[in-house]
Amino acid sequence: MGTKLSKFIQTWVPQIDTILENDIQRDADQQRLAESMSYSVNAGGKRLRPLLTLATLQTVGHPIDHVILKVACALELMHSYSLIHDDLPAMDNDDLRRGKPTNHVKYGAGMATLAGDGLQTLAFQWLVDNNLNSIKQAELTLALSKAAGPHGMVSGQADDIQFEGTRLSLKGLQKLDRNKTGALIRYAVEAGLIIAATPKSDRKLLLQFAELFGSAFQIYDDILDVVGDEKAIGKPVHQDNGKNTYPNLLGLDQSYSVLSQTVARAKQVLYDAQQLSGIDTSLLVDFCSYFKIKDEK
Amino acid sequence: MGTKLSKFIQTWVPQIDTILENDIQRDADQQRLAESMSYSVNAGGKRLRPLLTLATLQTVGHPIDHVILKVACALELMHSYSLIHDDLPAMDNDDLRRGKPTNHVKYGAGMATLAGDGLQTLAFQWLVDNNLNSIKQAELTLALSKAAGPHGMVSGQADDIQFEGTRLSLKGLQKLDRNKTGALIRYAVEAGLIIAATPKSDRKLLLQFAELFGSAFQIYDDILDVVGDEKAIGKPVHQDNGKNTYPNLLGLDQSYSVLSQTVARAKQVLYDAQQLSGIDTSLLVDFCSYFKIKDEK
Repeated sequence: MGTKLSKFIQTWVPQIDTILENDIQRDADQQRLAESMSYSVNAGGKRLRPLLTLATLQTVGHPIDHVILKVACALELMHSYSLIHDDLPAMDNDDLRRGKPTNHVKYGAGMATLAGDGLQTLAFQWLVDNNLNSIKQAELTLALSKAAGPHGMVSGQADDIQFEGTRLSLKGLQKLDRNKTGALIRYAVEAGLIIAATPKSDRKLLLQFAELFGSAFQIYDDILDVVGDEKAIGKPVHQDNGKNTYPNLLGLDQSYSVLSQTVARAKQVLYDAQQLSGIDTSLLVDFCSYFKIKDEK
Repeated sequence: MGTKLSKFIQTWVPQIDTILENDIQRDADQQRLAESMSYSVNAGGKRLRPLLTLATLQTVGHPIDHVILKVACALELMHSYSLIHDDLPAMDNDDLRRGKPTNHVKYGAGMATLAGDGLQTLAFQWLVDNNLNSIKQAELTLALSKAAGPHGMVSGQADDIQFEGTRLSLKGLQKLDRNKTGALIRYAVEAGLIIAATPKSDRKLLLQFAELFGSAFQIYDDILDVVGDEKAIGKPVHQDNGKNTYPNLLGLDQSYSVLSQTVARAKQVLYDAQQLSGIDTSLLVDFCSYFKIKDEK
């Protein structure tokens, strides 16, 4: 990992964690619900999505304050809700996440359903419960709803359960992943651009980076299910049998190759953005070190 | 029912139904998810909540156009999501709603979970995916998130499942109901006031009416579970054993008496609003005919 990224993480993750540990409790007035919501949000996630929002802001030269931090944290609420519901017995029925019992194992499926529901609602509340300009608040709400809803993440989840056991084409798999994982990651960068009021015409390359990064992220996640170590990644591996994943469709070697190409394209886009706009994209380049490509292992 | 209300319903319900039948399909790009979402939203609900928003607008003299209609319909999405999740096997495990199989019986619990999730997201999208002033868009988003989230509806649902089998005090039951049912009904009126940009100081009495109406609504729902006819109300009756309800806590006669007092207070507040602001509150008074008080039956 580059020094720039590791310093960035050291600066912001503790502040993200503080907000997520304190403010959920304050915004939920049913004790067990608050516990259940907080349990999953604070179970050791890497905070990748809020970090991407903050890194986008730093890249375009916009200052970060407490209001902006909390808006960035809203995305972590949305992400956590999707994991809680995805783990439910009615969905993937997973017992372990990040090395800990999943929400429904600890609180029961009813409360876990409600914890997910409440986290989604609270994500929208955190976009607007602040003194940000209302044009930005409304634009963030629209962007997040499109990314998380039935045009985005929920649509990908529906593909995931509907087509389990049916082999999708590569194009079908790409669409599934673009919705299921890609849409929220794209929004992470978009949120930074909205907060910075970057003109729409200048957003194109960074959004393209976000799409490539999101695609690489899902391919890498699929690969880890095959080659990963349960202890290291905190959830059982080899769970994707019958699921539409890159290794199941293309085999492991070919999946690594697509990953490597996707990451290279993501870096190229950042290079282009730097050349075109004179912004320093090196921090975002550093984010690509998340992916351990096979021959670098 | 007063002629005024029945004319109002005849005017607006078909337009509400048209939006809810067409626009969900357009905003969900996964076919089975779209079907599942649409199935529950269009299963014969009375559209009470959007009607309350529109009635509030008419009461304060604000015109209603297509944009406003769709914002009012967003609340029906939110309400439908809560019913789908409430019926899930992990929650109340109900098989019948409005005389039809519940969503999970028809589409499976996984897809029903996602349909609920997607409807909640889409509700927020419909508040902001329009040309309304962004100050109003942001205010609507904040009000809906507070009403539906872990300070409101979801908190009430959590009380409902946590305290099933434990007798709450009357105060505890009132809090549960205020969150579970009352908060969205209060928002229905609040949304009208936000759209009309009614000054906050002038909102007080109509919001007080909304709170009393919401309270009466839950008491009446509890009573119908005891005295109602399965065919007429479209869901199995006598399901509330062990639940915290007015008849279980106070008995049936006393529940009718509290209902009657609550409705009388709601009407009194509307009378006061009419005296104070010179607005015509007769349409909202007509909404109180929804409650069939015992000795009027």
